[in-house]
Amino acid sequence: MDRISAQLAFLTEADRLKSVNRATTLCDASRRENSAEHSWHIALYALTMAEHAIRPVNVGRVIQMLLLHDIVEIDAGDAPIHGAPDPEAQAALEQAAADRLFGLLPPDQRDTYRALWEEFEAAETDDAIFAKSIDRVQPVIANLETGGGSWIEYSVTTAQLETRVGSKVKRGAPAIWEALKLRIDRWFEANT
Amino acid sequence: MDRISAQLAFLTEADRLKSVNRATTLCDASRRENSAEHSWHIALYALTMAEHAIRPVNVGRVIQMLLLHDIVEIDAGDAPIHGAPDPEAQAALEQAAADRLFGLLPPDQRDTYRALWEEFEAAETDDAIFAKSIDRVQPVIANLETGGGSWIEYSVTTAQLETRVGSKVKRGAPAIWEALKLRIDRWFEANT
Repeated sequence: MDRISAQLAFLTEADRLKSVNRATTLCDASRRENSAEHSWHIALYALTMAEHAIRPVNVGRVIQMLLLHDIVEIDAGDAPIHGAPDPEAQAALEQAAADRLFGLLPPDQRDTYRALWEEFEAAETDDAIFAKSIDRVQPVIANLETGGGSWIEYSVTTAQLETRVGSKVKRGAPAIWEALKLRIDRWFEANT
Repeated sequence: MDRISAQLAFLTEADRLKSVNRATTLCDASRRENSAEHSWHIALYALTMAEHAIRPVNVGRVIQMLLLHDIVEIDAGDAPIHGAPDPEAQAALEQAAADRLFGLLPPDQRDTYRALWEEFEAAETDDAIFAKSIDRVQPVIANLETGGGSWIEYSVTTAQLETRVGSKVKRGAPAIWEALKLRIDRWFEANT
């Protein structure tokens, strides 16, 4: 297959990410958010808030990771933060999804995209640590905007939120977590 | 307002782009596409196909433009390529939308984002010319995948497609248009 045809095959398959729904809703609570629009939104979060990264990041690489980070969900589905999936089974599904989906691309791009996705998942480099942080920020805002959202649905406590979300946001962007924490504490005081 | 609060106010308002629907549908024709998921998809198109730009581009800047390019639609709505809106009225609406929406940001970011959006709209720099090209590619694929899509809805002819889409794709990425043209001609031969 020629190069443009392979690229278009990948991009056409990527369209299916628009039909993968997440646990969180839009800020007006009208419907669940899908993983494609979520990916756009957190890329915009990263562009706008990169100055709050704990260490300097290459925002272009962070955005590339975030554009790609959920594509495996086309085959593996979305594992909600506050759900209780089997992490090993989920990881195996995601590896198989990465093989198939990135495998649609020309080999050089397949390897580049796979490496960016693996780097994101490993969360060890400064770019990946910040990308993972920002990925956790947007659902907090969606829950605050919708009067609790998935926190109510999954009966989340502040302690769970601190472990599952706070620790990850703080690792990459402590100033952002500090700002969110004020709003979260206010919400939990008023609602629990 | 502090910096993080201003950034979050902008990012929360941006959520509404997920509720702006476009003329084209998803590739499985299940529903209309919204402008937020479209923005993700064409950022991924740009990342994947930047090598076909007519002149070398800074793909990071192209992606930034594409993440921002439709945000004005939150206030101004989407003007379909094959519809017949009043271009001057639409432009005035979009300028007012840019004032309000980018105005939510801290002043330095307001000015940076506004400049990127104006550069995209003007389509004069190499980055903007390529960004505009790639923005026209994805609806062609969606129409081909759904058996005609908005071409049927708006009774589009090959001549109109050449003027409204082809000329813009060719200007920034002639090799991509050449590949699309083969598929488009095949569709029109079989269906008109």
